[in-house]
Formats: sequence, C-alpha cells, structure tokens
Amino acid sequence: MNLVINAQKERYKERQKNRGRLLIKCHDQRGIVAAVSKYLFQYEANIIESSQYSTNPEGGSFFIRIEFECPNLEEKAAGMKSNFQAIADEFVMEWRLQLVSELKKTAIFVSKELHCLREILVEWQDGDMMMEIPLVISNHETAREMVESLNIPFYHIPATKDNRLEAEQQQLKLLDEYDIDLIILARYMQILTPAFVAAHPYKIINIHHSFLPAFVGARPYDRAYDRGVKIIGATSHYVTNELDEGPIIEQDIKRVDHRDHVEDLKRTGRSIERSVLARAVKWHVEDRIIVHGNKTVVF
Amino acid sequence: MNLVINAQKERYKERQKNRGRLLIKCHDQRGIVAAVSKYLFQYEANIIESSQYSTNPEGGSFFIRIEFECPNLEEKAAGMKSNFQAIADEFVMEWRLQLVSELKKTAIFVSKELHCLREILVEWQDGDMMMEIPLVISNHETAREMVESLNIPFYHIPATKDNRLEAEQQQLKLLDEYDIDLIILARYMQILTPAFVAAHPYKIINIHHSFLPAFVGARPYDRAYDRGVKIIGATSHYVTNELDEGPIIEQDIKRVDHRDHVEDLKRTGRSIERSVLARAVKWHVEDRIIVHGNKTVVF
Amino acid sequence: MNLVINAQKERYKERQKNRGRLLIKCHDQRGIVAAVSKYLFQYEANIIESSQYSTNPEGGSFFIRIEFECPNLEEKAAGMKSNFQAIADEFVMEWRLQLVSELKKTAIFVSKELHCLREILVEWQDGDMMMEIPLVISNHETAREMVESLNIPFYHIPATKDNRLEAEQQQLKLLDEYDIDLIILARYMQILTPAFVAAHPYKIINIHHSFLPAFVGARPYDRAYDRGVKIIGATSHYVTNELDEGPIIEQDIKRVDHRDHVEDLKRTGRSIERSVLARAVKWHVEDRIIVHGNKTVVF
Amino acid sequence: MNLVINAQKERYKERQKNRGRLLIKCHDQRGIVAAVSKYLFQYEANIIESSQYSTNPEGGSFFIRIEFECPNLEEKAAGMKSNFQAIADEFVMEWRLQLVSELKKTAIFVSKELHCLREILVEWQDGDMMMEIPLVISNHETAREMVESLNIPFYHIPATKDNRLEAEQQQLKLLDEYDIDLIILARYMQILTPAFVAAHPYKIINIHHSFLPAFVGARPYDRAYDRGVKIIGATSHYVTNELDEGPIIEQDIKRVDHRDHVEDLKRTGRSIERSVLARAVKWHVEDRIIVHGNKTVVF
Repeated sequence: MNLVINAQKERYKERQKNRGRLLIKCHDQRGIVAAVSKYLFQYEANIIESSQYSTNPEGGSFFIRIEFECPNLEEKAAGMKSNFQAIADEFVMEWRLQLVSELKKTAIFVSKELHCLREILVEWQDGDMMMEIPLVISNHETAREMVESLNIPFYHIPATKDNRLEAEQQQLKLLDEYDIDLIILARYMQILTPAFVAAHPYKIINIHHSFLPAFVGARPYDRAYDRGVKIIGATSHYVTNELDEGPIIEQDIKRVDHRDHVEDLKRTGRSIERSVLARAVKWHVEDRIIVHGNKTVVF
Repeated sequence: MNLVINAQKERYKERQKNRGRLLIKCHDQRGIVAAVSKYLFQYEANIIESSQYSTNPEGGSFFIRIEFECPNLEEKAAGMKSNFQAIADEFVMEWRLQLVSELKKTAIFVSKELHCLREILVEWQDGDMMMEIPLVISNHETAREMVESLNIPFYHIPATKDNRLEAEQQQLKLLDEYDIDLIILARYMQILTPAFVAAHPYKIINIHHSFLPAFVGARPYDRAYDRGVKIIGATSHYVTNELDEGPIIEQDIKRVDHRDHVEDLKRTGRSIERSVLARAVKWHVEDRIIVHGNKTVVF
Repeated sequence: MNLVINAQKERYKERQKNRGRLLIKCHDQRGIVAAVSKYLFQYEANIIESSQYSTNPEGGSFFIRIEFECPNLEEKAAGMKSNFQAIADEFVMEWRLQLVSELKKTAIFVSKELHCLREILVEWQDGDMMMEIPLVISNHETAREMVESLNIPFYHIPATKDNRLEAEQQQLKLLDEYDIDLIILARYMQILTPAFVAAHPYKIINIHHSFLPAFVGARPYDRAYDRGVKIIGATSHYVTNELDEGPIIEQDIKRVDHRDHVEDLKRTGRSIERSVLARAVKWHVEDRIIVHGNKTVVF
Repeated sequence: MNLVINAQKERYKERQKNRGRLLIKCHDQRGIVAAVSKYLFQYEANIIESSQYSTNPEGGSFFIRIEFECPNLEEKAAGMKSNFQAIADEFVMEWRLQLVSELKKTAIFVSKELHCLREILVEWQDGDMMMEIPLVISNHETAREMVESLNIPFYHIPATKDNRLEAEQQQLKLLDEYDIDLIILARYMQILTPAFVAAHPYKIINIHHSFLPAFVGARPYDRAYDRGVKIIGATSHYVTNELDEGPIIEQDIKRVDHRDHVEDLKRTGRSIERSVLARAVKWHVEDRIIVHGNKTVVF
C-alpha cells in the first residue's frame, strides 16, 4: 500500500517543486503589497493566488497569503528567505515562506475511537491530504493494526492523569526524533500539560465534539440531547491552555430530530467530527491559516 | 392587496374543507394505533399522512400526528370530537383534533427591526403560510406603514420595563378581543411577565439570534464575533419563563469568516433569523409540533 | 479486527432480537391502518415508529413503514408472516416483514478508485452501518490488500466490455453462493447487462458522480467545469436498465468556485460521492426505502 | 418609508466616501501586482481587502479585485482613472475603478410572481443591499401597489411575444432616461431580444428556477417532480442570447422528499430562488464578479 502512496507523493512533490507560499501578518501600513510584490517580481515569481485582508482601514492588522510559481524555487529558497528579512524588519512582520514540496510531518494522537483517524488515513491514501505521517501515538492498542497495515509506525504510550508527565516525556522525545511539524488530536481523550502545549504553539489541532461555545467540556452529546437541540456540531481548533477555548479553525453541523437518542447523536456526531477535523488539517497543511489573537484568518 | 390574499385564503379553505389533523400524546401502550385507526375508519376518514414516534419501547411516551380526509368533515367535527373522548380517557391521552380550514389567528409583536415581520408577510402574501393575521402590536411606530398598507390593524403600545404590566393589560385585552391562537415575537425586544406567558402556554413563538445554547442572553453577535466562530445561527422556540430556555422548534446556521465584523454577522444573522422563524411558524400552523417536557416533537 | 466487528454485530443482534419492520405498498383504501394495527396488536407488538404516506386522497398509492417491538419475535416471525397474507390479499398489498437482527448480506463491487469502498468500511467498522459484507468483487487488484486486512474475501474478476457475459457468470455464481441480498457499486466502472440487473431488482445501488439529471453519462466533472457551475453533486440510485435513470435514493452537493480545476472538482466530488452512497446504503439496510415507479419513498 | 431608506443610504455613502474598488482582468504576466500596488501607494491608498486568482501559472488569465481606502477619493478619482490607463495599456488589461459611494442604479423587471421582488425590497429596506432602485417595470399590474407604497415609480408595459419589439423600445427608453446600470429579471417571464441583451452586456441578472444545467427551459419543477429528485435548486446567471446558458453567478439547493408534490416544489423553490437571486445581486453591486468566457470569478 505504502508504495502507491509514496509514488503519489513523489509525483506531487515533483509537480509542485516551483510552488511557494508566503504568509505575512503585521500592522496595517501603506506600501506593504507594493514592497512584497516588487520583491517577488525580482525573483521572477508569478503570483498564482493571493488573498489579503485588513481588519480595519485605520491602525488595524494586515494579513496576506500569496501562492506563487518561481523557476528553480528549490535552489533560490534560502536566498529568498534571507533577503526577505529586510522587508520584514521594515514593516515589523511575522512571516513564513513555505515550499509546497516540503510536506508537513504530522503525528496523529488517538485513543479508542478511530473514526477521525480513519478519515484522515482515507483522505491521505486518496492523495487528497498531502502530508507525511511518520507516526501515530495512542494510549490504547486499538488502532495498531490499522496503522501498521499502512506501514506507519505505531507507538502505544499508556497515558492517564496519574502518569501524564512521564507519558508526555516519551511523546515529546518521539516528536523530536521524527521532527514533527503538526500534531493532530484525532479524538485523543487526554488533557495535555501547559508545557506540552507551549512546546508546539498553534501546531496542535483538536476536534471538539460540539458546536463551541455551546457545550464546552465533557459529554456534549448528552447535554445536547437534554436541551433538545435541532442541530449538533463539531469544532476544530488549535489547542491552547484554556480548555476548548483555542482559536477556532472550522465548525460544521448536521440536523437531528426528536427521534435521535444520545447514541444517534454520537453516530451523527462522528460523521461531523471527522469531516470538520479533515478540513481543518487540510487548511493547515496548505498553509491557509494565520492565527490572530484568539481567532483564525483562513484564506 | 388584501382582496387577493382573502381570495387565496378562501380557495384554500374550500379545498381543505374535509381535511383534519389528529394529534395525540400519551404513555406508550399497546393498542393505541389500532383504537385510533378503527375510530377514523368508522367516520370514513382516509389517512393521508401519519407520523408516529415512541421515545422508548418500554414505558416511554407515544406521539402521533394523523392527517386525514373525511367526507363532510365540517358537519361531523363536533360529533367526532365528543366521541373521541372515550378513547382519550381509556389511554389517558392529551389530544386535539384540528380542522385545516380553521386557520390560526395570529398576532405578531414587533419592535423596530422589521426583517422577521417582513418575511412572515412575504410568505403570507404568497400564500405559503396559511393563517389569519388580525393584528400587529408594536412598542414603536416603525412598522405601521408596512402593516397598514396590507389592511392589517396596527396597534402602537409603548412598552418599557417601567410600564410593563400596564402595556401587557392592553395587549391581553387586544388578544382577547381578536380571539388570538398564536403570538409571534418577531424580534420583539421586551421581556414578557410570567403572567402573560402563563396565559398562552406554548402559544408564543420567539426567535433568538444565536444558536442556542451558545450565547444565551444579550448581544449574541458581539459575543460570537469575540469568540471567532465560523458559523452563526438562530433558534426559534416556545417562550417559557426561563429566558431562552423554552422548547426549541427550529435552528439553522450560516457560515461566516474572518472578514465579517459584528455588523456583517448581524446582517447575515437577520437572514437566518427570518427563515428560521418562518419555518417554526409554518410548522406550528400546520399542527406539526407536539411539546414534550422541554423539547419538541416535530412531525 | 474482525473479532471486534463480529462482537459488535452480535451485541447488536441480541439487542434488536425482538425488533421488526413491516413495509407495505398498495392502492389507498380506507381501513388499511386499522387492519394492520389490529394485526400487530394481536401479536402483542408495540409500534415504536411509524411513517405513512399517501400520494393522493382519492385513488392514490399508500405506503407505510412500521417499526415494532414484539416479545419472542424470532419464534413468532414465521407465523406472523403467513398470517399477514390474508390482510395482504384483502388490500392487494406488496409487503415485507423484516427482522432487524437478520442483517443484509452485501456484496461490494469496486474498480480502482477506492474512496467509496473505504467510506463504507469505515462506517461498518465503527458499527454505524449494520450489515454483513461476505465478499468484495473487483475488476482490479487495487483493493485486495485493504479488503483482506479486514478478513473479507476478495475476488478479482477482470471485466471489460469484451468479456462482460463471462465475468458476470462468475459474479452471479459468487452472489448465489454467498446468498447476497444487496449489491453496492462503489464506483464500479463497468456497465451491467440487462440480465444481471433483472436478476436483482432494486437490489443494486450505484453512485453517480453528478447531480442527476445534470451531466448524465461520462465525464461529469469535466462537463461541470466547462459549464462553470457553482455547486457539484452526487446521486445514489437503484440500477435499472436505463443508464443513470433508476430511482434516486439520495443526492447531495458541495460548493465549488472559480479556483477549482477539474482535479479539484474530482477531489471535492469524492467526498460527496462517499457520503451520499453511505447514506443510501444505510437507508436500504434499515428498510427505509420503498420503490414506487421510478421514484423512492424514503421513510 | 423612503425617508428612512434615504437617510440610511446617505449615511452609508458618507461612511464609504473614501472607499474604492479596482477590478482587473488580463493575461497573466509577472509584475502586475507590483505595478498596481505601486500605483495605489502613490495615491496613499491603503488596501483593505484583495483577492487575486490566475487560471494557470503559464499563459493563463489573471484576475484581481482590490478594495481600498484613499483619503479624498472623490476628488482624486478622475485623476486616478486617467493615470491608470498607462498601466492598463502596458498589461493589456480590462479594468474598472468603482467608487463605493456611487450606488448602482437598478431596474427590476417582474411579472406576476412577486417573491423575488419582495425579497430584494426587504433586503434593500433593511439596508442590506446597497443600490438605487429608480424604477420597476412589469408586464402586469400585480406589483404596482407594493412598489408604489415605497415611492418607487412603477411602469406597466404589457409585453407578449407579439409586441416584443415595441415593448422593448419603451423599456429601453426608460432604462436610458433613468441611466440604469443593472437590470434584475426577478421572475420576469418574457424572453428578451438579442438586441436588448446586447445593449446591456453582463448587466442583466436572471434567476432560473432549477439547478442548471438540469432542467434547462420551461417547467423545471414539473420535470424535477417527474424525475423524483431529492434536491431542487435555483441558478442566478447573467443573461446572454443562449437561453439559460449565460455565466452562472450563484446556485443553491434545498432538500425535498417523496411527500412533495409539484406545488410543494414550487413553494420550496420560491424560497431558494429569492435567496439565490439576492446573493447574486449583492455580489454584483459589491463589484465582486468578473466575467471570464462563459464563467464568473466571484471574489
């Protein structure tokens, strides 16, 4: 199986080898787009798609995402990055320049419920979610067979509230060894410590099984059932140290009705959770998201 | 204009003159459907559409809505109602038998924001919401011209938290005079007293401008903006004496994104509010809703 | 893996052992519901959920689906079926009585695109699609590894337009051996002969990759791209001998925009196709569908 | 009523007086964004929102929409326009520079079905659709009262296939007198002649009552009913001389089911038609649409 996936990835990387993405956040000022587009022009880069947004014409924040084609990008990239710093300094920018061919290295954390993991692996096998998956970490054995059947290393690290620090030590060591860029909590039912979260700012994507801020916390489907809502939802967000309060990336909903018991809400919910998480992950790996305060700009 | 609307209504009532609806709620027991269908058969009624639901096979609640055609229904109706009581007593039912041709008499309460009122009047003029609208009551003059242009009586009753009881006295007197069955709070920004609500149990439909239970209370769009949600919603519910806690009839949502300021959320929200309220009202006037505890069964 | 799935299925069958479903289609006549509910009452069956619909109060068609709990259903079932025939004869009914614990035996046909197969297997492994999958048949080897990793027998039967009859002979033999109730064409890219279709009336579910009747036939995404549509869709339908003309079970859509090339439409389309097919299959295995002419009633 | 609407519009125009929009279409070439952003910088314009798209990195088409704030825009506008021509010539651009405070002057054409007209007037009265409506033209008297109650001039021009040319002469004269920028066919049931269409290229927006290209032509709801579709739709498009074949601006759908007769499809359809048309008109008046061949880029 992995041979097929690898061949697919290699074709993609070859096809995208001259494709880059530039993401910028700074205070809004006149002249930013002029300076950036002049810079790209000097490298013979051709802008394919660009989205820009300012929160406020006077004194607000400025965000831009530019996707471009540039001949011989792989050779030029280092020089382009170091030369951009002068512009970044002038406008006091936060920025990054990503090569599309450098796929994100993603670790997936999972517990016993596997629907989110399965969805990601389905999209990934179909070539519809371009990233590397060097490992899967779980506090249970449930996912081992599925993961290993795709030749992805699977690590079982039992984690409870009693051994949290120790378990996180092992996890952090693995994330470091595999040089991980992105962590997906695919219904991983453990709370992470502030130190763990701080080590991966806006690099941890969680799926919460409610339409936040409704039903923050535990047992959202039971509470949705008790309230008699007509719609249930799921929310994907970056993890911060405020439980269920991180910047929201994506939300979606489905209709339910009086015939749906809690078990039905959970079943419908699984279908929402996996599609919402998959979209959030796709947008992250396509460098479409800029975090701004406790919100996201999704281009 | 009203001549057209009246002609439309008369045609509808003529067409539906043999159409009835029977709604029943009781403890689940064997034999209910058998008894009810035998009863309808005796009156030569033909069941057109029927929906039934039990919360639980053992000891739960039973709900049914039956729509039927019955020759000479208008003449038979009184007899049918009195004869049904024996069945109702046997199974300890709450029930009602409605003639479709007896349109609900609806009062609309409105303040200064008119989008929900406009939507209802649009649907009503198109013949897509079959009910009588004998009057509109407002604590402002804003809606007068629009309402009176349709030959609907408009009553301006200033209402603030200081004169609430007095205002409600006037309102109740009007509702009584016009023999009102249903009250629609089409963005009516005043809180009703417990006495007012108690006088019209499950006969007052409100629209709340958020996806309840998210953003209960005031200023939901401001709070949605602050939280950075990707979807906003609206909720239509029966009014009870718990603020925003009554049985939910219908909810819906629309997508928003980082470009949307509070004003944009409000604009998008207006569009959701009016369609959600319109659907809830339609289901009520079509006798599709049975309240059960703090939830609704919508058939 | 299969041990987990099997345990799940056994628990489900045990839980549902007294649950039955009665589906009826006939000419509309007075007294049907009375007769059927009296019959169920005699067997001490309790109606849990019932949906009924008549196309027309005068001389139309009548459809009903009743889900009931009945003590000792498995022992009573044969007697119930033979005793129902008298009622069926009186009203000239087409009918079936299904035990929920008797899971449908489903064969999945697939070619090289695996997303629909993967979706079904995901839902099935999660226990969200209750059926047996005794075998998968493909004209390619692509799916073998995935299928066999779940201990499902996989049969590679090369099929082209040149050996169609011969391939179908092998397929029919397998369907017979495994006593198959339902065939899912999960993006199986071969046309079936009239004889094959006739052998399984309304037992073959296909997914078409467009919003029928738009883009009947080949290459729908290319044609959608050329037309500049803003929404693409997928349609699941029963297979008949008119290409893409069988009774529609379910359709759904997603938004696309000017940035989407044909490849993007295909990627988005895959996501619609798999969810639409999964819903159609679920409704079929839950006995929710009654075919009526070239349409479906979905209760 | 109009006093309120006028006050609302004047406040909007005052608030937006420095806001402009620049729309460009040309062959993709390096340096376009650099040249345009340098030009805007010279005028001290600050880019608020910008969206750019190229069909193809090599030799494709380039589209950009820039919304900007520029001090004293109203005084500068004429100079900005004439100075932009040099850039436009260099890159062989089609372009326009719009002042947001210059509201589009819109004529609405309507026949006897008024739901689309009502929706537009609702949004317009709420200040959610910023444009002038100098007149409404109809081949029937049905809309007169509603239109005149808002102090909008109403012209009854009987139009049939027999007097088409003559009627269009009168219509064109009025469009000219009122200096109309945009024509909305709000369920105007007459076909326009090629000469009329040619006089307003991509300035006529129609609503078709199906999900094009399904059910091109007459009686789409009847045909949707016959086919047994599970979803119906509506399509808003620019009018060209190919019936129902002009560039699609927006489409949307709603679910229907087996209980819906043709009349129900029409009722549901009215609700889709009016919201789809309203969105298309809003995008047009916000200068979000660039026509490209037979497609639209909607930014």
